[in-house]
Amino acid sequence: VPRVPAVQVDASSGFGLDHLPLGVFSTPGEPPRVGARIGEQVLDLAPVAAALGLPVAAALALPTLNPFLALGRAHWSATRAWLLDLLAQDAAADLLAPHLRRLDDVRLHLPVQVGDYVDFYASQAHATNVGAIFRPDGQALPAAWKHLPIGYHGRAGTVVVSGTDVVRPRGLRVLAGDLSPTYGPTTRLDLEAELAFVVGTPSALGAPVGVDAFDEHVFGVALLDDWSARDVQSFEYRPLGPFLGKSFATSLAAWVTPLEALAAARTDLPHQLPEPARYLRGNGSGLFGLDLQLEVLVNGTVVSRPPYASTYWSPAQLLAHLSANGASVRTGDLFASGTVSGPDPDQVGSLLELSHGGVRPFTLDDGSTRTFLRDGDTAVVRASAPSTSGGRLSLGEVSGRVRPAR
Amino acid sequence: VPRVPAVQVDASSGFGLDHLPLGVFSTPGEPPRVGARIGEQVLDLAPVAAALGLPVAAALALPTLNPFLALGRAHWSATRAWLLDLLAQDAAADLLAPHLRRLDDVRLHLPVQVGDYVDFYASQAHATNVGAIFRPDGQALPAAWKHLPIGYHGRAGTVVVSGTDVVRPRGLRVLAGDLSPTYGPTTRLDLEAELAFVVGTPSALGAPVGVDAFDEHVFGVALLDDWSARDVQSFEYRPLGPFLGKSFATSLAAWVTPLEALAAARTDLPHQLPEPARYLRGNGSGLFGLDLQLEVLVNGTVVSRPPYASTYWSPAQLLAHLSANGASVRTGDLFASGTVSGPDPDQVGSLLELSHGGVRPFTLDDGSTRTFLRDGDTAVVRASAPSTSGGRLSLGEVSGRVRPAR
Repeated sequence: VPRVPAVQVDASSGFGLDHLPLGVFSTPGEPPRVGARIGEQVLDLAPVAAALGLPVAAALALPTLNPFLALGRAHWSATRAWLLDLLAQDAAADLLAPHLRRLDDVRLHLPVQVGDYVDFYASQAHATNVGAIFRPDGQALPAAWKHLPIGYHGRAGTVVVSGTDVVRPRGLRVLAGDLSPTYGPTTRLDLEAELAFVVGTPSALGAPVGVDAFDEHVFGVALLDDWSARDVQSFEYRPLGPFLGKSFATSLAAWVTPLEALAAARTDLPHQLPEPARYLRGNGSGLFGLDLQLEVLVNGTVVSRPPYASTYWSPAQLLAHLSANGASVRTGDLFASGTVSGPDPDQVGSLLELSHGGVRPFTLDDGSTRTFLRDGDTAVVRASAPSTSGGRLSLGEVSGRVRPAR
Repeated sequence: VPRVPAVQVDASSGFGLDHLPLGVFSTPGEPPRVGARIGEQVLDLAPVAAALGLPVAAALALPTLNPFLALGRAHWSATRAWLLDLLAQDAAADLLAPHLRRLDDVRLHLPVQVGDYVDFYASQAHATNVGAIFRPDGQALPAAWKHLPIGYHGRAGTVVVSGTDVVRPRGLRVLAGDLSPTYGPTTRLDLEAELAFVVGTPSALGAPVGVDAFDEHVFGVALLDDWSARDVQSFEYRPLGPFLGKSFATSLAAWVTPLEALAAARTDLPHQLPEPARYLRGNGSGLFGLDLQLEVLVNGTVVSRPPYASTYWSPAQLLAHLSANGASVRTGDLFASGTVSGPDPDQVGSLLELSHGGVRPFTLDDGSTRTFLRDGDTAVVRASAPSTSGGRLSLGEVSGRVRPAR
């Protein structure tokens, strides 16, 4: 007799039983707590775990994923296992029903309390495109780029949840026709389509996380938009890197997809030449790509389709590199891929690239044109990937609307 | 009748009643909590506040300064006022005596839970010296340097308390005679003598902190050593700035000196030309320097005496700049000056500068020479400043010993 699932969900929703991303939600009058997304519903996990007598219930009742993430891989897997088992049983429907909320009825919160936020530059096409725009007289790809994943620390305190409006930042920039900088609203507000990795299990100071230990430390992934003020960035970034051009806001998707749900999305990396140092190779198990298909939308128009599989450095290489000097990682740390751009012009993950440095406008479905974002525009990044059931899952989208400068 | 103080302290100790820095300490079998340093003793503040019936007692019983810092300027000042009043009364000696610990008998902890850590580059001599060493064929001072305080985000999770050993980090660097990079222990381990500012009162996302609001948001200062692996840094830093060359460890002094104690140390800034943008000037009240005299010691030899007063950008300009794009600050955020170097050769705050890029060794008191730090070396940064009583106060030192690479 085939089992009847306890919760009906359209397999084509991208949020079926093969996915089960985690996030933090609240309902009016009740505090934020951990939920799992199932189709267009959210399952309130703590009371279900409590009803089953599971000790993990306490961690699931809290307003960030951090306490749950700190429990480690064995607990993440066990929690996913009992949840999947429960959802497959028709008999569990009565237990679950009181704890299901319609997505439309809940508020979503930043899923993790972010420790450190590191942003990489792992896409070869992106680094080459940006290098050619920012440094037209120099070598497009930085000299060290194929030796190590170049990255920098971003501002953890301004990571906001998807759906948060983004106020157009002010900064010092040199306007066209001016010789010296003035302080005012950015004229080149950009998005960057990225994938972020969420650290669960911490590491000790002085002990690098090996490239083969990715699955032990990383819980899952979420889409990220690294909003950028290109005029501010280009004026300030030498020699210490991007600062105010990036630090005003970074948007993170509300739903974190567990690594288990992406098992079928692992794919080969692009060929790496020169061969990276041993600490970036390990036994080879960390050298995988991810076959995620991203889409960038401005006001509903798909303007680009960046293929994550084209990313040069593997997620495990990013983690191994950021800790190769002994730097520790903490529960809630984020590290992100950097802008995902494929080799084709319609595969770039930023408007800087799409508009060729602001000189070639692109057209939206309503006939209007853009180089960078206007006040009132909404930028969305979404993605899908092959799922373990043979279909496709949808990552939680990351979106934000641009509000005028104050 | 002159009052007899409740606690006897040598005025020349630098930790007299005109200072009263705060930190976090513990004693065997008791949890970390907030203390004030008085000479060579630590006053356990929470039980004293509790005995007086003060609500602040709860915040002072916790293992970081953050809950106390979050209370804001009015509470910081009130706490300092009752403490000063109490210490001035002979009659309070019996109340205080049970709560005084000898400094030698306590363990000191990282005083704040660090939110974001920003490091600036505010010393003109340092930026010029380093520019000439790292970019010998280019302009030493970056083009934007006099328009804005250049800065970057460091790694908050690897800020450690003074006294913590620092393991020599590994990283990719190009050894002399090699053409390509190899992964191994840094051969150019450096210190950087800096002053860090500790944020107490947070700000809202989207609302810049004005240059005149420094005293409202900043609780105090502490010395900081931004350890640097120069070979790793020089290989990796283009175009996103320092990353693994810095992120392995940053040491913070255990004692945070309240701004009030530095009232007599405020001094004029160097002349700023071109005139900075209005958001960096305000009504002028934020345009002050600090007359702190730093000393850098290697294995007990004073190798340099950097004058903080030579720093180009004011502390208030650093805070105004880092939030000028609307970035919020949080309780526990640190922002640091960057290496403090004066114009003279014996006033530089890093060994990179002292050794002219590693080519001119300097000599220690034991006759040995250094360019960069060897395993087993101890680096110390200490500082003094004019105090409100007409004498001088000593900032808590920041120190660390170098352990061999693992």
